[in-house]
Amino acid sequence: MKNFKMIVEYEGTEFCGWQFQPGQRTVQGHLEEKIKRIFKKDIHVIASGRTDSGVHALGQVVHFKVDTVMKPSQIHRALNAFLDRDVSIAKIQEVPMDFHAQYSPKNKTYRYTILNRSYPSAFWRNRAYFYPHKLNLALMKQAARLIKGKHDFKCFQAAAERSKVKNTVRTISRLTIVKEGDLLHISVTANGFLYRMVRNIVGTLLAVGSGKISKDIIPQLIKGKDRKVSPSTAPGHGLCLMKVRY
Amino acid sequence: MKNFKMIVEYEGTEFCGWQFQPGQRTVQGHLEEKIKRIFKKDIHVIASGRTDSGVHALGQVVHFKVDTVMKPSQIHRALNAFLDRDVSIAKIQEVPMDFHAQYSPKNKTYRYTILNRSYPSAFWRNRAYFYPHKLNLALMKQAARLIKGKHDFKCFQAAAERSKVKNTVRTISRLTIVKEGDLLHISVTANGFLYRMVRNIVGTLLAVGSGKISKDIIPQLIKGKDRKVSPSTAPGHGLCLMKVRY
Repeated sequence: MKNFKMIVEYEGTEFCGWQFQPGQRTVQGHLEEKIKRIFKKDIHVIASGRTDSGVHALGQVVHFKVDTVMKPSQIHRALNAFLDRDVSIAKIQEVPMDFHAQYSPKNKTYRYTILNRSYPSAFWRNRAYFYPHKLNLALMKQAARLIKGKHDFKCFQAAAERSKVKNTVRTISRLTIVKEGDLLHISVTANGFLYRMVRNIVGTLLAVGSGKISKDIIPQLIKGKDRKVSPSTAPGHGLCLMKVRY
Repeated sequence: MKNFKMIVEYEGTEFCGWQFQPGQRTVQGHLEEKIKRIFKKDIHVIASGRTDSGVHALGQVVHFKVDTVMKPSQIHRALNAFLDRDVSIAKIQEVPMDFHAQYSPKNKTYRYTILNRSYPSAFWRNRAYFYPHKLNLALMKQAARLIKGKHDFKCFQAAAERSKVKNTVRTISRLTIVKEGDLLHISVTANGFLYRMVRNIVGTLLAVGSGKISKDIIPQLIKGKDRKVSPSTAPGHGLCLMKVRY
C-alpha cells in the first residue's frame, strides 16, 4: 500500500462543491471516478477540507491510498488526461502512510476576490464577487486588523453548523487586503476555519468598507458570538483555497 | 440620430465568434438582441473587426446609431442588466456621426496567452493555449524582432481569405513576449491585421521556441508569401483583442 498526496486545482463553477453527493457533479466524485478508471477499483480520496458549491481551489490537498507499482509521474499524466478540463492535478507525490490531508494541516490560506467597479466583468464573472458600490479601503484594512489574531470566531460561523464544532477559537495569523486594478484580494491564513468563516469575514469587511457598519463594533460582534447580528455572507464564487501547509 | 461608441468585453468560449449567424449564439447577435429590447427596434452594431469562435475581447470597439433621448449612462446600465454574464459593456459614449468602428482604427492590439508548464490549468483552460513543451524564450524574442516592422504578411494570412484582401502589407509597430509565472503573453500592435495573422505569427513563434524551425528562415517565410509552408495556426482560445485606437 502507498499513500499519495496531490495538489489539486479546480474551478468550482460547474461543481456542487467538493463533497461526494449521489447524482451530483462534485470534485470528490469526479476525482474518485477517474482514479477508479486508473486502478480499476474504488478508492476514497480525502481532502484538506470540503469546499462549497462555486468555490475554487488552486491548492487543495488530497490524499488517497492504493496498492500499485505505478510511479507518481505516471498517475499524474493518466489522471490529468482523464479529468475534465475544470480540474487539474498540479502535483502528486508519495508520502508516509501517516500523512492525512484533513487532520494534519498547520494552516490554510484562502483568497477572496472582489471586483469593485461600476460594470461587471465577462472574464471574472465566476471568480470574483462583483461589488459596484464605493469601498473605503483604509477602513477595511483597519477592520481587518481587529479581526486578525486569536479569537472565538463563533460569530463568523454559519449558523447551521453551530452544534457540530465545540471549540470555535481559531488564530488568524495573516489577513491582508491587496488592491490590483479593479480587484480586491482578501487573503486569510489561519490554523483552522469554521464553516463559511472567510465568506462571513468578507461580508463584514464589505459592510465596513461601504459604510453600513462602523469598524468599532467588530470587537463586540466577536465577543457577542452571534451570527444573526453579523453582516451577511459573501457569495461562494469569489472564494479560492490557495494553500494548505503541513 | 445619435452615434454611440462602446467598449465591449467578452469571453468568447460560448460564442460562435463575433459575426451574426442565424441560429448561432454570436456576440453581435446577442448585443443586437439586447439593444433591440431597449430601443424596441432593429439596430445594427458594427465592430472594429470580427473575432473568431473562442476568441476573447477586453477592448472590442462597437458603434451603433439610434434616435433616442436616453443618456449614455442609462443605456450602459440597461444593456449590462440585459446582457448575459459573458459579455459586458465597459464604456459607452456619444461620438460624432462620422465615427466608424471598423473603418477608422489607427491600430489594434491583440494579446495571445500561452500556458507553458507540464500540467493544464482549470482556471486558464478557456483563455490560454496549454503548451506543455519546453520553449526557448530568447529565440522566440529574436524571431519576434524579425517579424516586427512593415512587411507583406501574406504568409501569415489564412489561406481561405486570400482572394478578398488585395493589399497584404501591414506594419507591426510592437511585438512583445512577456513571461508571467507559467504564462507567456505575446502582444501584437499593428495598423491592421490579416485574417488569423496573430494566430499564425504565434504558431511560428512556437515553432521557433520549441526548436521545430530556425528563426533564420523567417525572412524567407515572409518573402515567400506562402501560407502552406508556414507553421501551423495557434488555437483561437488563447487570443484576446485588447485595444483599438482611433
